[in-house]
Amino acid sequence: MAKKANNVKVTFLGGVGEIGKNMTVIECGEDMIVVDMGVAFPKEDSPGMDAIIPDITYLKQNIKRLRGVVLTHGHEDHIGAIPYYADVLKKTPIYGTALTIGLLRRKLEKDAKKCELKVVAEGDTIALGSIKVEFIKVCHSMAGACALAIYTAGGTVFMTGDFKIDNTPIDGKKTDIGRIAEIGAKGVTLMLGESTNVERRGSSTSEKVVGQNLEAIFAANRRKRLVVACFASSNYRVQQVLELAHKYGRKVVLAGKSMKGMVEVASACGELKVPKGIIVEGIGKLKPSETLILATGSQGEPLSALNKLSKGEFNKINVGADDVIVLSSSPIPGNEKAVYDVINALFRKGAEVIYDAMNDIHVSGHAYEEELKLMLTLVRPEYFMPVHGEFRHQHKHAMIARALGIPAKNIVIPNIGESYSVTAKGFRKHSNVPAGNTYVDGVVLEDGDAVLNDRRSLAEYGMLLVLAAVDLERGTLEGEPDVVARGFSLTDETQRSIKNAVAEAIHTADFDKTDIDEYAKCAKRAVRKLFLRDRQFPIIIPVIVEA
Amino acid sequence: MAKKANNVKVTFLGGVGEIGKNMTVIECGEDMIVVDMGVAFPKEDSPGMDAIIPDITYLKQNIKRLRGVVLTHGHEDHIGAIPYYADVLKKTPIYGTALTIGLLRRKLEKDAKKCELKVVAEGDTIALGSIKVEFIKVCHSMAGACALAIYTAGGTVFMTGDFKIDNTPIDGKKTDIGRIAEIGAKGVTLMLGESTNVERRGSSTSEKVVGQNLEAIFAANRRKRLVVACFASSNYRVQQVLELAHKYGRKVVLAGKSMKGMVEVASACGELKVPKGIIVEGIGKLKPSETLILATGSQGEPLSALNKLSKGEFNKINVGADDVIVLSSSPIPGNEKAVYDVINALFRKGAEVIYDAMNDIHVSGHAYEEELKLMLTLVRPEYFMPVHGEFRHQHKHAMIARALGIPAKNIVIPNIGESYSVTAKGFRKHSNVPAGNTYVDGVVLEDGDAVLNDRRSLAEYGMLLVLAAVDLERGTLEGEPDVVARGFSLTDETQRSIKNAVAEAIHTADFDKTDIDEYAKCAKRAVRKLFLRDRQFPIIIPVIVEA
Repeated sequence: MAKKANNVKVTFLGGVGEIGKNMTVIECGEDMIVVDMGVAFPKEDSPGMDAIIPDITYLKQNIKRLRGVVLTHGHEDHIGAIPYYADVLKKTPIYGTALTIGLLRRKLEKDAKKCELKVVAEGDTIALGSIKVEFIKVCHSMAGACALAIYTAGGTVFMTGDFKIDNTPIDGKKTDIGRIAEIGAKGVTLMLGESTNVERRGSSTSEKVVGQNLEAIFAANRRKRLVVACFASSNYRVQQVLELAHKYGRKVVLAGKSMKGMVEVASACGELKVPKGIIVEGIGKLKPSETLILATGSQGEPLSALNKLSKGEFNKINVGADDVIVLSSSPIPGNEKAVYDVINALFRKGAEVIYDAMNDIHVSGHAYEEELKLMLTLVRPEYFMPVHGEFRHQHKHAMIARALGIPAKNIVIPNIGESYSVTAKGFRKHSNVPAGNTYVDGVVLEDGDAVLNDRRSLAEYGMLLVLAAVDLERGTLEGEPDVVARGFSLTDETQRSIKNAVAEAIHTADFDKTDIDEYAKCAKRAVRKLFLRDRQFPIIIPVIVEA
Repeated sequence: MAKKANNVKVTFLGGVGEIGKNMTVIECGEDMIVVDMGVAFPKEDSPGMDAIIPDITYLKQNIKRLRGVVLTHGHEDHIGAIPYYADVLKKTPIYGTALTIGLLRRKLEKDAKKCELKVVAEGDTIALGSIKVEFIKVCHSMAGACALAIYTAGGTVFMTGDFKIDNTPIDGKKTDIGRIAEIGAKGVTLMLGESTNVERRGSSTSEKVVGQNLEAIFAANRRKRLVVACFASSNYRVQQVLELAHKYGRKVVLAGKSMKGMVEVASACGELKVPKGIIVEGIGKLKPSETLILATGSQGEPLSALNKLSKGEFNKINVGADDVIVLSSSPIPGNEKAVYDVINALFRKGAEVIYDAMNDIHVSGHAYEEELKLMLTLVRPEYFMPVHGEFRHQHKHAMIARALGIPAKNIVIPNIGESYSVTAKGFRKHSNVPAGNTYVDGVVLEDGDAVLNDRRSLAEYGMLLVLAAVDLERGTLEGEPDVVARGFSLTDETQRSIKNAVAEAIHTADFDKTDIDEYAKCAKRAVRKLFLRDRQFPIIIPVIVEA
């Protein structure tokens, strides 16, 4: 395909080990758009942080060329960073389908007024400067998900977004394979394809199958109280649970703020049909057989409804032999321990717990290997970038693309911070741009990396405070140094060694003994040396005062 | 079965969420034995710790009655705590099969001389006071694994230990089903059965299948260098790799201290047959097609051979397109991220990486559901305790035992620290004993829990040091307080608030202003109050000096 003078350029700004998931920039000529602005949730390697959001320095540098933010769907990892950057984006229109924008509006709270939120329908095409963006319906674990065809003077970029192919979706709205084939036939320059489930063979299972298996649980446990936990954002799962509750004569109590929020937003925009009168405010006098609790917390989140339930802290409910608790989910990698802790706690209380390890009560919202092949076959891109997932997933996806006939030189596995143009001669790599992780701990941290490094050291080795009083005139210690330790087991022997090392160093070292800061440096060096031998690196804080 | 006057008593001392795995005490009358003394390796919730070992207070209290330590097999989680307690155990004989004792001797280094290590053969019965212990051959992921029949005046206790049923084991030594059936037929009072894989349906796969799939990799990659990573302790896996290397004309370089140690110990006791001349010291001038590197690090351990290889730090080898790297293992829960980080790094270097997610190159050493049923059917115990694994595994195992006809009242799911006798009337629960986690950080910590709590707080919230000089005579601050933060993002505004809060508190609070410690308490309270609002809990260290 012949390229125009203006090449299309793709830059990857965000994503914690998930390239191209949280935030991608598409540019052509003077126009720039952003696809998704998501948040990642910190794991053990970022202790105490609330969230990790993309670094938007590059965006700020080019804010005058930014024509709009386009959202593929409403999951946190695609929209969750926007509230932190609401001020930066106040002159930028933000586009998404009804559910996506509904959830974003709720997240933005008061700031929603600042932003220009625009609802599009699946199938719509919008113009953002010279760039046109078409929203194409795809199935996913929530409604309103879209792939994007981005038409530029430099060619068409097709982004799959998060998707699966479900031929029996709950709402009847299938992945628009016909339209994708048409776009492919007209010529796609570059495709960005998600790779999350590339290691899974065959095709993903339809959401409808979950409903069938959940029904078996409803049918087998008519006398017991049922608790179903799932992601609040899974409107199809929620839909099926509400319908089953209706069919089996149960009232539904919503547990968890995000579950209530989702039900409200999804019903308002028509993506959830709530049977009349089925949702009640509290359990009241309902018998177990008449009750269904629909809860958040399927990932073992500490403050979630399910976790509170497992500790007897929810609605005064004492979970026991009368309860069947269904976790309609599977643990996200990294959450296993938290999830199994909750399951163990519920079993200990005598409840029956039904979870994914032994029951088919969850399906993934991401395409498996054969679905990914189908997508590549439909789109037939000239150039391909596997995105989302770890490098091993991207690598496997690249291998599949090669097997389907895309030449190796037309495939690039991009990294965060990288920027590529597609030219008539192929990919052209530009200099990297500022990108990566910005940490949020209450507020957006300017010095997040430094804070995090200190926290990791503190956690790994603890800290030592060395207090010493010095006589600046005589250049000597007054009394002996004092040592305070936290997260460090200070034996009498170690304490003595530290005191001696500091006293010795101050006595013998050659430094300006009228400068109090020099004593601090000297003491720190002496203590550091003491621990280097054992490869221990506590944080050492010397406090020198003038006697 | 009628009980004798002396009841048999079981006490669970060790195991990090894995009841009965690391250390169990069996007593009858005046005699006591210990089964296994294992170590657990800390996860993110125990930052910086080297190891977690069982609390042996109960053992020390009863050391005069301790007749011996009996080891089921040589994995770290069954023998790894012994080196830390070598002094306590110096008068206690320690029994195990040749490989188990060989590995323990190596771990003990110089301390091996202090201990009375005794090698038994599979099938042997030993007398420990009035208690007799029979070692019964079972298959597992390493040689020398035994179930134990413990004969006491209070009845027979059967402990499965870690086991699987493999009818085509590499060394031809099968789980001794015949002998287990005989013991069952004579009457077993109590069985302790491992539950690790109770959630997996059907039966585990034979180790031999791994060899077949590994051979396909050898056959398909004759020109490339092969790297195989597995647990050093998996002598059967190592055996198969050595034989394949021999068959396909490759020399073997052992990478990693524990791999070399295992090969040495296992060959010395006849559990590993090394083809003559196949192991070489370094790669030297070997071509890729002639080389096989057998490495540790299949769990992504930071200092392991495989990790060094992925960073180009091993033997000057630059991993690239000429290498096929096989991880013959699956990630232990909690190690996923570390394992996938190594896999991603190897892919980035251009190597082909073959790992468990997409290839059948690993089998578990633990029995699946149907094997557990077979074991219960053979042993036919009167009483049953499911052990090993989390509560959900124990619970499922208990359900299976009930389905096989053991009455619910004859089944107990034990916890760490609990102690039970089996009497003529059934289980009798005694008071709990001191048990649980003892932390090792260089040395065995006396105050491990306190150190750990501080580390967790430091990691989660960071710390604040508040320095103030006071005039004790006038009861006033000299100058303004100073604030130092680590792992905490200190904005100018926060710093100002802290200074003001401390100054204000010292000025207005009612305390003994001649006591310097009271100023510290007052300052700490004031700062704590400031952060409580935002539910932040940094560690606050006030340092007050006399001006």
